[in-house]
Amino acid sequence: MKTHRSDPFLLTPGPLTTSATVKAAMQRDWGSWDDEFNAMTAEMCRRLLGHANATGSHVCVPIQGSGTFAVEAALGSLIDPALTTLVLVNGAYGKRLVSLLERMRRPYEVLDTGDAAPPSPATVTERLQADPSIGYVALIHCETSSGILNPLEAIAEEVAAQERELIVDSMSAFGGLPVDAQRTPFLALISSANKCFEGVPGFGFVIVRRDALEAAEGRCHSLSLDLHDQWRYLQRTGQWRYTPPTHVVAAFLQALDEHDAEGGVKARLARYTRNRECLVTGMRRRGFITLLEDRWLSPIITTFLSPAHSAFDFARFYAELKASGFIIYPGKLTEMESFRIGSIGHLDVAVMERLLNAVDEALAAMGVDDCRPAA
Amino acid sequence: MKTHRSDPFLLTPGPLTTSATVKAAMQRDWGSWDDEFNAMTAEMCRRLLGHANATGSHVCVPIQGSGTFAVEAALGSLIDPALTTLVLVNGAYGKRLVSLLERMRRPYEVLDTGDAAPPSPATVTERLQADPSIGYVALIHCETSSGILNPLEAIAEEVAAQERELIVDSMSAFGGLPVDAQRTPFLALISSANKCFEGVPGFGFVIVRRDALEAAEGRCHSLSLDLHDQWRYLQRTGQWRYTPPTHVVAAFLQALDEHDAEGGVKARLARYTRNRECLVTGMRRRGFITLLEDRWLSPIITTFLSPAHSAFDFARFYAELKASGFIIYPGKLTEMESFRIGSIGHLDVAVMERLLNAVDEALAAMGVDDCRPAA
Ligand SMILES: Cc1ncc(COP(=O)(O)O)c(C=O)c1O
Ligand SMILES: Cc1ncc(COP(=O)(O)O)c(C=O)c1O
Repeated sequence: MKTHRSDPFLLTPGPLTTSATVKAAMQRDWGSWDDEFNAMTAEMCRRLLGHANATGSHVCVPIQGSGTFAVEAALGSLIDPALTTLVLVNGAYGKRLVSLLERMRRPYEVLDTGDAAPPSPATVTERLQADPSIGYVALIHCETSSGILNPLEAIAEEVAAQERELIVDSMSAFGGLPVDAQRTPFLALISSANKCFEGVPGFGFVIVRRDALEAAEGRCHSLSLDLHDQWRYLQRTGQWRYTPPTHVVAAFLQALDEHDAEGGVKARLARYTRNRECLVTGMRRRGFITLLEDRWLSPIITTFLSPAHSAFDFARFYAELKASGFIIYPGKLTEMESFRIGSIGHLDVAVMERLLNAVDEALAAMGVDDCRPAA
Repeated sequence: MKTHRSDPFLLTPGPLTTSATVKAAMQRDWGSWDDEFNAMTAEMCRRLLGHANATGSHVCVPIQGSGTFAVEAALGSLIDPALTTLVLVNGAYGKRLVSLLERMRRPYEVLDTGDAAPPSPATVTERLQADPSIGYVALIHCETSSGILNPLEAIAEEVAAQERELIVDSMSAFGGLPVDAQRTPFLALISSANKCFEGVPGFGFVIVRRDALEAAEGRCHSLSLDLHDQWRYLQRTGQWRYTPPTHVVAAFLQALDEHDAEGGVKARLARYTRNRECLVTGMRRRGFITLLEDRWLSPIITTFLSPAHSAFDFARFYAELKASGFIIYPGKLTEMESFRIGSIGHLDVAVMERLLNAVDEALAAMGVDDCRPAA
């Protein structure tokens, strides 16, 4: 997998490196009112539902803006304001769910397990049993700020057993990790165009249980983010309620084709896992330490602790790697110096091997010969 | 100006036909955290401020999503909830301002002048003098649902004389019609990427007086649409608060270059005006009647009343024109059968001439020999 010489690989969790053919799909203008574009929207929603095994039980509603806009649309449209939401937090995106609920003045409770551990299903059950006012549990599927893979299936089971509703922010996971709505009950699952389906950024989407969406009329605090209204308009006219990012949608359809051609979620997960294994093995061989224990590592993105060596400087490391054609990500932890490297996007093990060589060169250029973090 | 044979011209008020070079600017992936992309965002905002002669007094804040999202962000972030907004309505987009305020529970009053007439500045003054609780006036610059060009400068003068604040939805006008913040006082002016600057859809932006934005902390009902938060984050980090539509931004920068190369707002207005004149003259010669009197016609889009002839069928007319390579727009009037044809986008008089030929062919195919509307 190659890109143009001047284009660095984005080893970031979206926007990420997309294929040349995905970008080439943006070389036309579509009328947002025209049947041809409406058919594209319908096909996209149909296929996304299929990927979650949610056809029939759920509907897929796209929403303009970044992923956070889609999360806000889901929370604001679907949550009954009389009920409390239990937010499972172990990183920045969990905290963002809290900020969203706070801003829209919806009652919430937090179960925070820190940066490096997932919530335990048993604790969730305890909280739900103790507080009957809790109607919803909100979970981040892959917490991209650390890379931790949260136990969606186990949590979903407990939430269902307690007869509550689950809302899943699967932004950085859906398309790369399997989701089966028939085995893993959820009210809503949110993701966006520029993550594991490898499209370009510009919209998000919500896979939402039809009965719940039907009941959501007029509930959203925001007109632009009203999921029910968007859905009804789509049903009635085939069109997005306001101007859609037409080119981004076209790119996404091409990305869906390429996802199928690769072999769907299973093949993509296998490639991302190979990328991650190559990366983590190689980095560990150089002395780097991952934030997480192996069993919580996701195939999406990995957090490495910054070397304690006095010559290590993240800005310099970033610049050296960029000069070699790789863009990595700064850390998003509050407690420790760290950086992140993604394993998703249009890239494979050969790219990861080249990255590891570039890491060697960057460390040599800085004069860093010991990559262990502060004790 | 030509496009690929299979690509119809979009004679619609955005998404519109963009140049091949604007679309080609989307053939790279950018890291949304990287300096290079941050510089693109900064340059875009700087240039947009320049186009409104608002550098210094105002700042430009982009916001992900469609234009409506940016309007909601401006209303929700800037309006003091204790004060009433007088909304000047003469079409669907004015009504949307009302729906937005309604949803966010902000007090408003409406001055509705119907589909075919602008608000009179004297009446606005009367309303403002009669009601001291009115703090804001909201105006649509070009009401795209009819094509009417509202008298922005005259209204702005009256609003300023009454010491109230003006919010302008200039979605379909900015970049094609001159705006001068130093002569035409406004609190905020909203537009989007896919209108007169001829970019592709995916974000909007607000040109907002700095002092007012500074006072807007924590006011917005929505976190995603919080203009103050977006601005502060941009100031602090150079980055958009949440993932930006990177490719759409890149296309927009190319569109800004092409806008400059053409000769800026003045040249673009001249081209759009020529397009409109060719269109209106040609359509009138065929017996079509415009909804508006000449003095209210905009160079953006024109509404034609549908022929009363029994053989005229809009769906057929649309399909015939599409087969000839032109996509037009249905009407958006509540009272009369109509359709709309835009004069903006990467197109010129030669395209309009070809459209007129296609109209002749479509009318002939339908057997319509009289284009006058119902009396
Ligand atoms: C788990 C998760 N949630 C939410 C978001 C926010 O998405 P956006 O930046 O598109 O608003 C991200 C972005 O990476 C994410 O990884
Ligand atoms: C004047 C005006 N306001 C608002 C909008 C809404 O923009 P969007 O469809 O991008 O949300 C439009 C769209 O054409 C418009 O012309």
